[in-house]
Amino acid sequence: MRYSNCFVPTLRDVPADAEVISHQLLLRAGYIRRVTSGVYDYLPLALRVLRRIEAIIREEMEKAGAQELLMPMVQPAELWEKSDRMAKYGPELLRFKDRHDHESCLGPTHEEVICDLMSRELRSYKQLPINLYQIQNKFRDEIRPRFGLMRGREFVMKDAYSFHADDESLMAEYRNMFDTYTRIFDRLGLRFRPVEADTGSIGGNDSHEFHVLADSGEDVIAHCDGCDYAANVEKAVSVRSVPAGTPAALAELHTPGVTSAEDVAAFVGIEPALLIKTLVYRVCGGEQDGAIVAACVRGDDQLQEVKLIHALAADAVELASDAEIEAIGGVTGFVGPVGLQQAELWMDIGLQGAIGMVAGANRRDLHVTGLDVARDVAQARFIDLRETRAGDRCSHCDGSIALSRGIEVGQVFALGRRYTEPMEVQFQNQQGKREIATMGCYGIGVSRLMAAVVEQCHDEGGIAWPDVLAPFTVILVSMGQSDGVMEASGDIYQQLKRAGVDVLWDERKERPGVKFKDAELIGIPLQVVMGDRGLAEGVAEFGRRGGDRREIAVADVVAETLAELASGGRTAV
Amino acid sequence: MRYSNCFVPTLRDVPADAEVISHQLLLRAGYIRRVTSGVYDYLPLALRVLRRIEAIIREEMEKAGAQELLMPMVQPAELWEKSDRMAKYGPELLRFKDRHDHESCLGPTHEEVICDLMSRELRSYKQLPINLYQIQNKFRDEIRPRFGLMRGREFVMKDAYSFHADDESLMAEYRNMFDTYTRIFDRLGLRFRPVEADTGSIGGNDSHEFHVLADSGEDVIAHCDGCDYAANVEKAVSVRSVPAGTPAALAELHTPGVTSAEDVAAFVGIEPALLIKTLVYRVCGGEQDGAIVAACVRGDDQLQEVKLIHALAADAVELASDAEIEAIGGVTGFVGPVGLQQAELWMDIGLQGAIGMVAGANRRDLHVTGLDVARDVAQARFIDLRETRAGDRCSHCDGSIALSRGIEVGQVFALGRRYTEPMEVQFQNQQGKREIATMGCYGIGVSRLMAAVVEQCHDEGGIAWPDVLAPFTVILVSMGQSDGVMEASGDIYQQLKRAGVDVLWDERKERPGVKFKDAELIGIPLQVVMGDRGLAEGVAEFGRRGGDRREIAVADVVAETLAELASGGRTAV
Repeated sequence: MRYSNCFVPTLRDVPADAEVISHQLLLRAGYIRRVTSGVYDYLPLALRVLRRIEAIIREEMEKAGAQELLMPMVQPAELWEKSDRMAKYGPELLRFKDRHDHESCLGPTHEEVICDLMSRELRSYKQLPINLYQIQNKFRDEIRPRFGLMRGREFVMKDAYSFHADDESLMAEYRNMFDTYTRIFDRLGLRFRPVEADTGSIGGNDSHEFHVLADSGEDVIAHCDGCDYAANVEKAVSVRSVPAGTPAALAELHTPGVTSAEDVAAFVGIEPALLIKTLVYRVCGGEQDGAIVAACVRGDDQLQEVKLIHALAADAVELASDAEIEAIGGVTGFVGPVGLQQAELWMDIGLQGAIGMVAGANRRDLHVTGLDVARDVAQARFIDLRETRAGDRCSHCDGSIALSRGIEVGQVFALGRRYTEPMEVQFQNQQGKREIATMGCYGIGVSRLMAAVVEQCHDEGGIAWPDVLAPFTVILVSMGQSDGVMEASGDIYQQLKRAGVDVLWDERKERPGVKFKDAELIGIPLQVVMGDRGLAEGVAEFGRRGGDRREIAVADVVAETLAELASGGRTAV
Repeated sequence: MRYSNCFVPTLRDVPADAEVISHQLLLRAGYIRRVTSGVYDYLPLALRVLRRIEAIIREEMEKAGAQELLMPMVQPAELWEKSDRMAKYGPELLRFKDRHDHESCLGPTHEEVICDLMSRELRSYKQLPINLYQIQNKFRDEIRPRFGLMRGREFVMKDAYSFHADDESLMAEYRNMFDTYTRIFDRLGLRFRPVEADTGSIGGNDSHEFHVLADSGEDVIAHCDGCDYAANVEKAVSVRSVPAGTPAALAELHTPGVTSAEDVAAFVGIEPALLIKTLVYRVCGGEQDGAIVAACVRGDDQLQEVKLIHALAADAVELASDAEIEAIGGVTGFVGPVGLQQAELWMDIGLQGAIGMVAGANRRDLHVTGLDVARDVAQARFIDLRETRAGDRCSHCDGSIALSRGIEVGQVFALGRRYTEPMEVQFQNQQGKREIATMGCYGIGVSRLMAAVVEQCHDEGGIAWPDVLAPFTVILVSMGQSDGVMEASGDIYQQLKRAGVDVLWDERKERPGVKFKDAELIGIPLQVVMGDRGLAEGVAEFGRRGGDRREIAVADVVAETLAELASGGRTAV
């Protein structure tokens, strides 16, 4: 394509409100423009990249035996009532009424629609297993859309849904999809890591997320340096050594105005690990909706709320108000596990059997010392509640846990019968009996992937696309506008096109400096430069973006380009 | 692909609520399933057809110099306020508020979004002309979705928008797009006709619609048998000879209870063409919103409301109530042009100069005779208001007008500055002055096209896809399940795949009758049949769907297939 015919509105300055580098570069390089909060136009260069990502995903999904279909964006609310998610999904599910007053919503995901389809079309075990996928725009009404394509409201997603006669078949497909995702992200040239994940609002049993490693990632993932254990910190477990407390009788200690874990530890003169930190929450959603619960971790730990939410089978938890704390017999700032009434008490497993601990006394300006959890806290339920920290010991080997930031670009779920049961996805088994199918679902954030690639692949000059994703593989830069240069350039352009190379010919009447800046910024991997000087000698300059260029014979441009692409040389990362 | 791995839920019976053949066949052949009113799942076969249509559209759009981009489905209402369509568009524009209470809508079309983009990115005349298009899901909240994909609510559309420095450039692109559309519909193998069209709610100056000819079409198009004049009846003009009235004085005639045009003509003993039929409307939208107007045509003509709406620059008209008719001095059943007060009076141009006419007297049970339009109706405005009928004379030549039914699958608009002016799409011209750009827009209903093709291409057995659109080009039917047949079929299957042929291998354990019925129903153009008998002789049966099959050597299957496809032989239509 000729540059003059390509709509690429590059910007010289960094846009004011773009915080992360992918957002800045995609705006500056003329890939995207904001329409409204979390909603973007994909300009021609961006669409070309999206299409390349989609093509790789399609190829691997088809190889894996999945079939593509297309479901609608607008969904009837009754399907969400049937799956019991209409109330549960929260305000991210954008709801509206159509002109006939039918409650509808914009699809943030399609479990309901596909189950509705399968409940009508599935008849026999002979139709199973089946895996159906689509690539389609989704809408999630995020409370705070940010970081450009990283957390948008309308976004492109690949979502796949598989149905099975039994869980063995489901787990085989789960592994098949896990491997397929690994192949997809490998082909995209990304540094990524699959991690164990919480199942969140989708539900089900097993789940893995695929994270692209990047400092700007919103997720924290824990991984072991000794084995291949890796998990989202929302779910990660680890072990650590804690100091042993000294056996003692339960006693009260006057601690006027001393409330934070650090202050209490300093005031008492103990390590924070010997303190019990108690948090009181209001449960949102689920069977205990509205209930007040207490949860304890050691003073130097952080409570990982997702683990508590999971244990409560709730949609969310919110910190309780002072009045709610009082209602269960607590006092804000001095809450402790001893003496709380009418509230479920959850304790981190690391507190099981702890002795000589210090905790709030549930009375103003008082703590208790010598607390023996087994002796003094009868009603506690022990689960893993603490957030894994860097330096913890792996629970699978002797290795040490490290934390990294990641951008979640894919997730696979072994849903089981979470949706197929309420939505009546049934089939006749070999014995002629009706059975409920079991189900998996598998998502990839296609537009987010584009941003994630930029987070990993950029330098000071702009975006450094991997060859397989670049909107054009080669940029041909004409230096000056002399007839000779334009003619020689036009000739190279035609040759590259005939060879099937996606080439962008910068034939604009612009200074060379402007052209090179734009070429770097938009991130085309290979550069061919034709100027008056080379013209005389029959040579062009050839090289990778961000590297040195060398002179090659004009006659060799096509061959050199193809060789360079075949070598798969990656751009600087 | 193997048939067993392809999700094609065919039905034996015609679905009860499907009225038109494309709706019936797309359901029966397992292409689509209804999700909710006017909203469908596109199952794998349908998606393959959609992708083929899209590929042809893309190829021709790119050849024509357009660039693809992708805009969002969710649009902020403020853009529609700016273009002044928020109120005008009516309830087809689905509006809602997001969680932050921002008024938004689901895009039924994208003039606003693209103008917003261009108003920010367009700087210089050097960027013009430019044509940007997308293929994307749209939503229009139709009051009565029907006929399956023909009039759905969520549908796939190709929409293109061009911007220009002047109207000469706009009209050149308009012709370019007209020609491009002609090429696209030609390549799709459709019998179609471009016709002059009303500009409707999109607005602008010139417009043409592209209609696929089919009896089930919702539109009526008028075309001349002597020249290439063709227009939607909403806009079509024509001439006809009318009997001359006899000059007379205006007189009253007692016509008790005689109100319909036919009855009045019979009662008076004149031809209906000598009667003036007067209709009273309430204007909806536009500057005259709420006003009551009267409109007259000859007694044997029908008033074409779209022409009146256009003349009034309104969004719609509705028949006035008895009270509203009274308020302007009329009496329902006896309304006439003489003596109406405080109402605009529009008359069909064919009534200009008419004499000796009969009309309602605006008094109960009374008509007037001897009406001389020029003498008695001073305030009338004459425009073309009548609906063209079959047999009318062409207004361009001596030919005769015929009417056909059509399915509108494309429309091109020379919009001018209808949107660019309110939305401030400006550029700096060669003299350095700011100017408002002029604009065109060009749509193709991609999913409706799929239905339109089925309306034209089907027979008793099912869908008869043109080669270029079929989800698979060849269906390979294995007769029986013997090792020999399966092995020979597998071999042919691999050979066809290697030759790049899209082949569907029906290797199911089903009776031959079931397989052939399904093959006909889903409409694969070429059939290769492998059975035990042929196996012994090394032959397979080969033929077109709906035609005879002949025996060919197994070794020749690939060559015969490629030859047949190259011949472009069309399936029975």
